Amino acid sequence: MAVYTDVAADELADFLKQYDLGELLSYKGIAEGVENSNFLLHTSAGSFILTLYEKRVAKNDLPFFLALMTHLAEHGINCPLPVKARDGEALRELSGRPAAIITFLEGMWPRKPNVSHCAGVGEALAKMHLAGANFTIKRANALSVSGWRPLFDAAASRADEVQPGLRGFLAAELDHLSSGVWPTDLPEGVIHADLFNDNVFFLGDRLSGIIDFTFACNDMLAYDVAICLNAWCFEPDHSFNVTKARAFLNAYGRVRKLTASEEAALPLLARGAAIRFLLTRLVDWLNVPPGALVKPKDPLEYVRKLRFHQSVTSARDYGLMPSGLVA
Amino acid sequence: MAVYTDVAADELADFLKQYDLGELLSYKGIAEGVENSNFLLHTSAGSFILTLYEKRVAKNDLPFFLALMTHLAEHGINCPLPVKARDGEALRELSGRPAAIITFLEGMWPRKPNVSHCAGVGEALAKMHLAGANFTIKRANALSVSGWRPLFDAAASRADEVQPGLRGFLAAELDHLSSGVWPTDLPEGVIHADLFNDNVFFLGDRLSGIIDFTFACNDMLAYDVAICLNAWCFEPDHSFNVTKARAFLNAYGRVRKLTASEEAALPLLARGAAIRFLLTRLVDWLNVPPGALVKPKDPLEYVRKLRFHQSVTSARDYGLMPSGLVA
Repeated sequence: MAVYTDVAADELADFLKQYDLGELLSYKGIAEGVENSNFLLHTSAGSFILTLYEKRVAKNDLPFFLALMTHLAEHGINCPLPVKARDGEALRELSGRPAAIITFLEGMWPRKPNVSHCAGVGEALAKMHLAGANFTIKRANALSVSGWRPLFDAAASRADEVQPGLRGFLAAELDHLSSGVWPTDLPEGVIHADLFNDNVFFLGDRLSGIIDFTFACNDMLAYDVAICLNAWCFEPDHSFNVTKARAFLNAYGRVRKLTASEEAALPLLARGAAIRFLLTRLVDWLNVPPGALVKPKDPLEYVRKLRFHQSVTSARDYGLMPSGLVA
Repeated sequence: MAVYTDVAADELADFLKQYDLGELLSYKGIAEGVENSNFLLHTSAGSFILTLYEKRVAKNDLPFFLALMTHLAEHGINCPLPVKARDGEALRELSGRPAAIITFLEGMWPRKPNVSHCAGVGEALAKMHLAGANFTIKRANALSVSGWRPLFDAAASRADEVQPGLRGFLAAELDHLSSGVWPTDLPEGVIHADLFNDNVFFLGDRLSGIIDFTFACNDMLAYDVAICLNAWCFEPDHSFNVTKARAFLNAYGRVRKLTASEEAALPLLARGAAIRFLLTRLVDWLNVPPGALVKPKDPLEYVRKLRFHQSVTSARDYGLMPSGLVA
C-alpha cells in the first residue's frame, strides 16, 4: 500500500486541463502498489488511475512502460491504456514527479487464488508473450543473474539476523546460479517479471486484466513462467500445489508451447526467480526506514520456495507432462 | 491513510448479495481515514464506500453514526447516506468487523483551504447544527473536559521527550480548564467534532459534502465552531488567519446566529478544542507501534495553536464583529 506524494485538488484540476477527460469529480489515494503513488480519479469522462512515479522507478524507463502498455492494449491484451494528453504525450509531470494517467480496469485481484485463476494467468501470460513479440523498444532486466550479487552484497552482513545460516545459504545458491548454468539460448521477448496475484484482475472466474508493468523488460519468456510458478502455485503454508502449477502450465502451453529446452530449464529458472524475490525482499526487510508507511514482505517465504525448487529434478515435478502430451 | 483489514474478493461479493447493489466490479483500499479500513467500491449500481470499523471505534456507537448520517441526509445535508441491506439494516459484519456501506460523495477535500472554503464550512456546519436539532439518539462526548485528564495521565511521563516543558504546560492548562470555567449553559445539540479539511469535499468552490461522523456526539454547538477555528483558520506556519476566521464565523452566523454567551465563550472553547487535539495527537505520537502504517500527526502544531488562544481576549480577536453587526 502506498501513497507517498499527495496532490492538491487545484493542482490536479489544473493538470487535467492538459487532457480531454472532462471535469475532475474526485480522487482517492489507493492502497495498492509499493513503488509509486496511485490515485483513483473520477472525472466526467469516467474512472482513471493517476500514477506518480517515485524515485525507485528510473525515469528513463517510463517511456518503455507506457509504450509497452499501449502496444499490448492495441494487440488485444487487457491492460491499462495510457491516456495521451492533447499534445499526444502520455508521460507528464505533477508535484515534481513523472506522472501518467491510465484507463481504469474493473476487476478484483484474487486474495486466495484457485486453480481456475492459475489457468487464467497461464493463458494471459502466454498471450502477452505473443503480443509482445513485435514490440521494438528494449529494456534489460536489471534483476537477472548479474543484478543479484549487488543485492546479496548489500544484505549479506545482516542476513543471519533474519535467519541463522541465511548468508551461507544465499552465497551457495548464488555461486551455483552464476557458475555458468544459467541459460542463455532460450526464446526471449518482453516479460512482465512481476505477475503476482495483486497484478491480475478477475471478474468472477474471467480474467479481466493485467496491471503494473514497472518491472517489465526483455528476458527469457520461460523466466516469466518461472516467476509465476513462484507467485501463484504455493499455498499460504508454503507447500507447492502441483494442481495449480499444472493448470497454469497447461493453459500457457495451449497458447504458446514451451520448447523442450525451456521445459528442461524450468527448475533452474524457478530457483533464479525465487532468489530474485528473496534478495529484494531481504534488502527491503533490512532497510525499513523509521515511520515507513509500507510493511515489508517476509523474505523467508522465498527461502522455503527456493528449497523446494532445489529439490525439483525435472519440469514433471511442476506437473508438466513430457513434451507433446497434455494432461 | 489506512487499510487495516483486507477483504477477499469472493468474501466481498458474497457480502454484497445482502444488498440491492448489483454486481461487484472493483474495490480499492483507500488511503483516507485513520480510524477504520475504507474501500471504494464500483458496482453495477454505482460507486460506494465500504467501511470496516476497527477496534478504536466502539461498536455500540455505530448505530448512532449511521442513524445520524441518515437523519442529516434526509434533512438536506450533503453527507453520505448509509445503504440498507435487503433486511433494512445498514450495520452488518464483514471479516469479523462491524461494516457498513455508504453512498460515495464526489468532491475533493482542499489541501490548502482558502477563505472561500472557510465560508463554505461555516455555512455547512451551521446547517448541520440546525438539521441535527430533532435527532433523538444521544451520544456523550468522550473527548470533552472529563476525557482530557486520562489522556494527560497516559502521556505525562514522556511529554517532555516531545518538547521540554510540555508536561508542565499541559498540566497548567488542564488545571485551568477543569477549574469550573468550562461553560455548562450554552446551546447544545449534535456536533461533528472532527470537521477538519479532509472531511469536507468541494467541487470547485462549492461545498459538495461532509464526511466521517465517527466523532459526532452531543455537546455545545459552539464547541464545534471552536474546533473549526483550530482546524481551518491557521496557516501552515501556524499563524492565525483572521480573514479566514471572519469568513467562517460570518457564514456560520448567517445560518445560525451565535448567542452572546457563545461568542463570549469562544476563546475558552478554542483552548479546549486545541488541548483535545494536542492530547490525542500526543498519545498517538508516543504510542506508534513498530511497523505502523499510519504516520502520527505532529502534536506540537497544537501547542502553538493553544498558545495563540491563550493570548486571545475576546471573540473579536477571531474576527467576529460585536453581536448584531456583520462585517
